[in-house]
Amino acid sequence: MRADALKRFVPALSWLASYDRRTLPADVLAGFITAVLLVPQGMAYATLAGLPPQVGLYASILPPLIYALLGTSRTLSVGPVSVAALLVANALASSSAEAYLADALLLAAMSGVLLLMMALLRLDVLVNFISHPTLSGFTSGAALLIILSQLGNLLAISVPSTGSGLETVYKVATHLPGLDPITATLGAVGIALLLLSRRPFVSLLMRTGASESVAVLTSRAGPLVVISLLTVCVAILQLEQKGVAVVGALPQGLPSPSLDFLRLDRVADLLPAALMISLIGYVESISVAKVLAFRRRQKIDNNQELIALGASNMAAAFAGGMPVAGGFSRSTVNFSAGARTQLAGIVTAVLVALVALFFTPLFYHLPKAALGAIIVVAVASLLDWRGFVNAWRYDKADALTLLVTFGGVLLFDIEMGLLLGVIMGVGVFLWRSSRPHVAVVGRIPGTQHFRNVKRHSVETWPGLLLLRVDRSLFFANISYVDDLVAEQVADNPELKHLVIICSAMNTIDYSALEALEQLADSLHRAGISLHLAEVKGPVMDRLAHFGIEEWLSPGKVFLSAEEAVQTLKPDE
Amino acid sequence: MRADALKRFVPALSWLASYDRRTLPADVLAGFITAVLLVPQGMAYATLAGLPPQVGLYASILPPLIYALLGTSRTLSVGPVSVAALLVANALASSSAEAYLADALLLAAMSGVLLLMMALLRLDVLVNFISHPTLSGFTSGAALLIILSQLGNLLAISVPSTGSGLETVYKVATHLPGLDPITATLGAVGIALLLLSRRPFVSLLMRTGASESVAVLTSRAGPLVVISLLTVCVAILQLEQKGVAVVGALPQGLPSPSLDFLRLDRVADLLPAALMISLIGYVESISVAKVLAFRRRQKIDNNQELIALGASNMAAAFAGGMPVAGGFSRSTVNFSAGARTQLAGIVTAVLVALVALFFTPLFYHLPKAALGAIIVVAVASLLDWRGFVNAWRYDKADALTLLVTFGGVLLFDIEMGLLLGVIMGVGVFLWRSSRPHVAVVGRIPGTQHFRNVKRHSVETWPGLLLLRVDRSLFFANISYVDDLVAEQVADNPELKHLVIICSAMNTIDYSALEALEQLADSLHRAGISLHLAEVKGPVMDRLAHFGIEEWLSPGKVFLSAEEAVQTLKPDE
Repeated sequence: MRADALKRFVPALSWLASYDRRTLPADVLAGFITAVLLVPQGMAYATLAGLPPQVGLYASILPPLIYALLGTSRTLSVGPVSVAALLVANALASSSAEAYLADALLLAAMSGVLLLMMALLRLDVLVNFISHPTLSGFTSGAALLIILSQLGNLLAISVPSTGSGLETVYKVATHLPGLDPITATLGAVGIALLLLSRRPFVSLLMRTGASESVAVLTSRAGPLVVISLLTVCVAILQLEQKGVAVVGALPQGLPSPSLDFLRLDRVADLLPAALMISLIGYVESISVAKVLAFRRRQKIDNNQELIALGASNMAAAFAGGMPVAGGFSRSTVNFSAGARTQLAGIVTAVLVALVALFFTPLFYHLPKAALGAIIVVAVASLLDWRGFVNAWRYDKADALTLLVTFGGVLLFDIEMGLLLGVIMGVGVFLWRSSRPHVAVVGRIPGTQHFRNVKRHSVETWPGLLLLRVDRSLFFANISYVDDLVAEQVADNPELKHLVIICSAMNTIDYSALEALEQLADSLHRAGISLHLAEVKGPVMDRLAHFGIEEWLSPGKVFLSAEEAVQTLKPDE
Repeated sequence: MRADALKRFVPALSWLASYDRRTLPADVLAGFITAVLLVPQGMAYATLAGLPPQVGLYASILPPLIYALLGTSRTLSVGPVSVAALLVANALASSSAEAYLADALLLAAMSGVLLLMMALLRLDVLVNFISHPTLSGFTSGAALLIILSQLGNLLAISVPSTGSGLETVYKVATHLPGLDPITATLGAVGIALLLLSRRPFVSLLMRTGASESVAVLTSRAGPLVVISLLTVCVAILQLEQKGVAVVGALPQGLPSPSLDFLRLDRVADLLPAALMISLIGYVESISVAKVLAFRRRQKIDNNQELIALGASNMAAAFAGGMPVAGGFSRSTVNFSAGARTQLAGIVTAVLVALVALFFTPLFYHLPKAALGAIIVVAVASLLDWRGFVNAWRYDKADALTLLVTFGGVLLFDIEMGLLLGVIMGVGVFLWRSSRPHVAVVGRIPGTQHFRNVKRHSVETWPGLLLLRVDRSLFFANISYVDDLVAEQVADNPELKHLVIICSAMNTIDYSALEALEQLADSLHRAGISLHLAEVKGPVMDRLAHFGIEEWLSPGKVFLSAEEAVQTLKPDE
């Protein structure tokens, strides 16, 4: 029993205990390939967050190790991710230069604590309130913001990495004449090479006889090859003396773990941003974890994921790293490189640690434009135009939600965009739910079937109205139903009995109950009896418990529409 | 055709054209009785808003005349209402003394414009998102806040009329030793007399032989009698020289209509408060209008009500009055006094105008404590304890929503309370919708009926799983369904075919569509085919339009669960 509880809290115990040595080579290879991707990506996302490049490396060592122990996904690759990096940059726009790094670590620690609190309160359901169109609009908007923010690095003009998208476009446009042609060339070459290293390079390899999987995996080294080439190019041509910004001297070794970043007076200021980072990080991680787990019939435990990501973020802060999450593209690479267990993640972490310990001097001549190129190419795939077109074809309201979120992110800011999207998504759903289908029904002669009077030729009876409501009643649709009833009542002066057929109602909430009570009372005062028919068992239990006999009186609850008609139809 | 459009926009044309002279005496009597109630109430609510008493009278003349022309309710009594008055006081807490009145008029004008904009955009559905528990908690909280705010007037101690409820309680408690015994006595006597003028007085009258309706109507003069008695008492005993605060000299006559209050630089500051006033005013008005119309089988047009209330509020500002709405208790009095048409409202307005023109000197000695007593007794009936008890019995989550709203109003402020309540009401609904009933089903031997495997002894087939989802799929429940499917897949290693039975799905939104597409893909990669069965017509049309054949392949859409079983069950 205790061993079970321990295994639940530390899922690594399960796969470690039954580890199959035959998968060891696959895990090690996948770990290596992911590390080759992660090193340039980690440094790039750190610069995106406005942090020194090595902070991205520090976030790629301890956090994935912690995740390997606590996470339920076998293949999720935890480390810096682009959207979280953008959120960090936004949150710290007003931080002083001295406090900037400490504030970034504090953000990671706070995100960690918030994720653990969400786990404690079982709030993993919260993310369900973000609809796909909202998420798609949000991601596309954030991706475009990120690309805009990199224009400064790519063109060597001074553009703040935060602010609304329009503002950035304006600033880039006005500063464009001052761009540095050498930097711009490096950036353009970097982007071109990165793009070529994908599909075209894979096709080329395959034409030379390589299998598709080998070709794809080889292409993953693209970023590393590109930064190596550009670094060598800068070093040989001594371009940094011609004004090309380079990464420069990075500290060698790892920072001592510390809690120095803890400044309680900053907590209140950073809380909204930390909440966004934890929420968005969790959504991205859980989505990719589920997709990958499904393919191998493995399970993901939402709540355990909150714990694992929470602990990983606290570890990130402790180890001097930025906030982390499970990255979408990186995890997919890890998966398709053949990772079977989190041993691959451990291998990746160890390799990144070796880089941080011994190889940082190699990055001295690395041009910042190369990091910008990596970011731009990586996030460009997040721009989901097809998603908008599809949504538009399927459902205009959903497509509009996507557009509003996208626009909100670009025109206001990233938090406001998400908030607008969530409100609009929920609003559209409520608005639809608030207009249930209601039909006046009559009996098909010779049967006990009741159908819409508008579509079938059916029997009706003077003074008796049968209304079928095709949905559960709740606060947002009860007044719509009320209005329809009021209209019917006003249009039928001789009405005596109104029967509501409840066959499609799974629930009746308290607002609807009160409204029904009031409706019964109002109808009664107008000389009309309200009756119910075909009430489902669980709903009837609650209504009975709540004295329906009394307040519905003289109205009744009938088992079937037929029984209601037999009792209430006028004598012939 | 044009006459019809005009009648729609000016509903008064309908009832004026066909006015039945026999109802004239009833309308005049009802108008008189309502005026007797409105004069003290209007002055009281003006002081609640921190305004001079006459501003309440000005708001009771032109606005109800405009409403009489444009409104669709025959009996709604438009004028100052308590909750709107409290909102005005809150909004203007930081206004300077000189700007206070102008700001109040600006609030009325802005509320009017907002209501008209809501009408234009057909936003009357917005109020449906306020659930009954939220509204009940909000009203009770506001009533308690109002009562607390009157403790200052009633005890002659200085207590600000705004701020959180706790703050007011604390201030009253600390200032209690400084209360003025004479004022407190007047207030206590006022409250006692007002309470006695209700049930006890009605019972007394009925015991002397009066009919119930006459007795009830007579009791409506209670507030007027009480303020007359207390005024005479103060005048004779010259209590104002002993420190009792009196209303003092009120201007005689009506202010000239003016737009002097228009200060565009204040608009942004006052916008949130104006939005609240228009929203809450509309909710109160439309609720009572509907209840009363129903009893006489009359119709209320939501959108026309927005127009009528919007115009009334603009008229209020123009005529020097505070924001107005249809009052709940006042309209009920008007209705039960026998009002048949808005002619009663016109009579009321004319009578209030006469008071403002000629009789304001009578109020010189009126003690402010008497106005406080009127407010306290009027709003005490809004404290809805029974609502909470009932909600708790019927549904704990709804009761909790009520409590959170109530607490939010008292502990934070009135806007925050409403916002919390709306968020929680919507949240509870979404949370419930996010956990649909899903059953694994099998076939009852010898039939074509499929039932839950947990409740019936049914046939199942190895490698084939039938899942019935009892709800429309949308963004907030799709991941719950996804998780259930993932669990089933992980637990059934030999699974080959998964059939989702869609008989209860009225809609599938775009998020759910994408999730289904992804599910089909993930299942396919895991060697499982996804099939659908019993898809409703309209849903199928959309899915077909969206290429379901293609992305579901090799899965199929079956007409019935039986057909799916016949095709997919393993050969025996």
